[in-house]
Amino acid sequence: MGALPTIHDVARVAGVSRQTVSNVLNSPGIVRPDTRDRVTTAIAELGYRPHESARRLRTRKSSTIGIRIDPMTDGISGSVLDRFLHALTEQAAAQGLRVMLFTATDPDDEIRQFARLRDGADVDAFVLTSTFHGDPRTEWLIANEQSFVTFGRPWGIDDMNDPAHLWVDVDGWWGLHEATTALLAQGKRRIGYIGWPSPSGTGDDRRRGWHDAMTASSGLTDAQLTPLAIATPDGVTPGGAALRALLAGRPGVAPVDAVVCASDSLALGALIASAGSIPVIGYDDTPVAQALGLSSVEQPLDEVASGVLELLTGAHRGRPDTGPTSDPRHRLVRPRLVLRSPAPLPAA
Amino acid sequence: MGALPTIHDVARVAGVSRQTVSNVLNSPGIVRPDTRDRVTTAIAELGYRPHESARRLRTRKSSTIGIRIDPMTDGISGSVLDRFLHALTEQAAAQGLRVMLFTATDPDDEIRQFARLRDGADVDAFVLTSTFHGDPRTEWLIANEQSFVTFGRPWGIDDMNDPAHLWVDVDGWWGLHEATTALLAQGKRRIGYIGWPSPSGTGDDRRRGWHDAMTASSGLTDAQLTPLAIATPDGVTPGGAALRALLAGRPGVAPVDAVVCASDSLALGALIASAGSIPVIGYDDTPVAQALGLSSVEQPLDEVASGVLELLTGAHRGRPDTGPTSDPRHRLVRPRLVLRSPAPLPAA
Repeated sequence: MGALPTIHDVARVAGVSRQTVSNVLNSPGIVRPDTRDRVTTAIAELGYRPHESARRLRTRKSSTIGIRIDPMTDGISGSVLDRFLHALTEQAAAQGLRVMLFTATDPDDEIRQFARLRDGADVDAFVLTSTFHGDPRTEWLIANEQSFVTFGRPWGIDDMNDPAHLWVDVDGWWGLHEATTALLAQGKRRIGYIGWPSPSGTGDDRRRGWHDAMTASSGLTDAQLTPLAIATPDGVTPGGAALRALLAGRPGVAPVDAVVCASDSLALGALIASAGSIPVIGYDDTPVAQALGLSSVEQPLDEVASGVLELLTGAHRGRPDTGPTSDPRHRLVRPRLVLRSPAPLPAA
Repeated sequence: MGALPTIHDVARVAGVSRQTVSNVLNSPGIVRPDTRDRVTTAIAELGYRPHESARRLRTRKSSTIGIRIDPMTDGISGSVLDRFLHALTEQAAAQGLRVMLFTATDPDDEIRQFARLRDGADVDAFVLTSTFHGDPRTEWLIANEQSFVTFGRPWGIDDMNDPAHLWVDVDGWWGLHEATTALLAQGKRRIGYIGWPSPSGTGDDRRRGWHDAMTASSGLTDAQLTPLAIATPDGVTPGGAALRALLAGRPGVAPVDAVVCASDSLALGALIASAGSIPVIGYDDTPVAQALGLSSVEQPLDEVASGVLELLTGAHRGRPDTGPTSDPRHRLVRPRLVLRSPAPLPAA
């Protein structure tokens, strides 16, 4: 199948420069008729689609958004990105925009896909997910003047406020702060935290939400809080193991009386391991949490999608600066705490 | 944003016929230079992308596949189509094909999207899901000579073997037959079935799998089997209610000793309602089933995706006729029964 033809291919086949191809497409009157014929014949033969960037510059509108879709996973929390993709596609369609999917094996491969989609004129802007500090993808997109918005902060101190990097993210700090505060209001004091190893932009942010709420209201010192937090890989089994360790306590460390988690996968493991003996709150409000009555933190994906589209289409310009960085190009949206009572579940 | 320009728009702006535009793109030598200039100028002004169908006919290859993505749902079983989309995009990328998403509110709207994507030259072929008998979408695609493959049978007696309708589907009959047979082998005899109301192509097919296995080996008559099957809307709560009714029995009808379900949502409700007292088998092997240790029937979505792509790209031609309809254009793939022991779960 191979890559789509580019303007370079047309130029090569027609035996002309890239500028001449561009002239034929944009100012055919200035090109000699025989040259014009060679170029239009090459365009037709190759099935080349004229690059849309010229049109986009004129209209300040793009019509196709590229987004990477990750390899099929059977995880619980992976459904969040699927739900974001649904919300983005629905809202994009309502604005006459389309969504093109691609896959990539790693960030460098994703950059190769950016270049391929740009050259094939298939995509006018990119939406990126799973951002991280020093992300080479956003550096490449900025350097190559490609439109993009990320769902996720850049997570670096300097680049978080970079005006060239438009982003929308969910305030994980706030979500965990709310969850912890709700448990404190129920009279819980030794609230544990199960999350991921540092450094993790998202994970560290969520842990700080728990930590700040505990520092404010639990009466526990930093030294007392440290053993209540467990860092572990994501998953149901690690979540269960972490909860058992927190429930067992150890010399000088009393058991926890509730737990908040960085994901529903961890929370599900904790829910099963606790056998309902203590409250557990997860994160992402996945279908699993909804089905089992697990409390969780819901990411407002419709709001994220509309924010992403607003930034992509430039509709944010002229809005008041309401973001946390006082810049409408950077938008942090608040998640929603969903408290539930777990359903009665069968014993083994 | 509006729809992308079509060849009709180019013709209108240039003040020529559609055929003339086509000539400029395909045989520019036969068009008068001034006409050619008007057309190329209109193409550049509008940002029109020459339709790829001519190229596709020459090369017998397409480069972009359109697929509808449904509104965001929070259901459990909806993840199957997301996982199919992941598998399809991954395998398409490996063949140099891309996947374009669109949304539609109903089948008629989906047909409007087909026409729009065809006219915009954005999509060379369509993949359809959630097929049904008398589906107007497939009728339109056949009448309009658009390439398409469905994940799902047409479900009509006549159209199931229509050579113009290429399809791949998972053999739900076989999945439920395997699940029921596995329970019969464990000594269960009064195996209930919880599924959806008739008519439902997929649902009726799965029920027949249970029914045929029971008729062959349970020793129960048709009259005895009838009260063991419950039809209900999909969902965790309806699944629980159905299981309670089957467990309660009634005058002349003994309780069930196991149950197979048309979906994991129904099975999860049954699992919770049964409190682990009888074996429950679901369908789709969703993340929920995997997390909770629920037995289920796994749809081989990688195999479905590769079958769909093989039919789309024409790679099936020349293959031996191994399908159930003795036609390589119609492929039924076998699901896999995954037996598990439910995890210990917390009581309320």
